[in-house]
Amino acid sequence: MDAAWREADDRLVRELSFADFVGAMAFVNRVAEAAEDANHHPDILVHGYSNVRLTLQTHTSGSVTDADRKLAETIDGLVGSG
Amino acid sequence: MDAAWREADDRLVRELSFADFVGAMAFVNRVAEAAEDANHHPDILVHGYSNVRLTLQTHTSGSVTDADRKLAETIDGLVGSG
Repeated sequence: MDAAWREADDRLVRELSFADFVGAMAFVNRVAEAAEDANHHPDILVHGYSNVRLTLQTHTSGSVTDADRKLAETIDGLVGSG
Repeated sequence: MDAAWREADDRLVRELSFADFVGAMAFVNRVAEAAEDANHHPDILVHGYSNVRLTLQTHTSGSVTDADRKLAETIDGLVGSG
C-alpha cells in the first residue's frame, strides 16, 4: 500500500491532486469501477476543482480491515493510469 | 432553486440519496458535466455508499453568488433524470 495513505480515526485516507477537474473526475470514475468490482465503497470527495480525497473504512466493523487495505492497493494501481 | 438547498458558512449545500452507489455515481457524472459546461465546479462528496453532498461556493469571493445559484438550478434539473 502506498505511503500516501494515512490512517486516522479508524479510516484510511489518501489525498490526490490532478491537473484539472476533468482529470480528477476521470480518476474518480476509475476508483468507482474498482469499488463496485470489489463491492467495497470508499467515501469520495472532489474538492477545490482538481483534488480528490478518498476515505476507506469497513462500516460493519468501524475500523480499517483487510478489505480496505486491498482496495487501497487496487486504487494505488489506478493512480497515474488512464 | 429547490428548497433542498441550504445556505451555511457562505456555501450552498444539498444532500441527495440514491438507490445504490452506481446511481449516486451516475448523478455525480451528470453534475460534473454540467459543472464543466458552466466552468463552475462544486465540491462533490459521495459518502455512505449511496449519498451525495454537493457544496457550491464562488471561491474568488468566498461567498454564494449568482453563479452558484445558477448551477444549483441546473443541478436541480438533473435530479431524477438520466
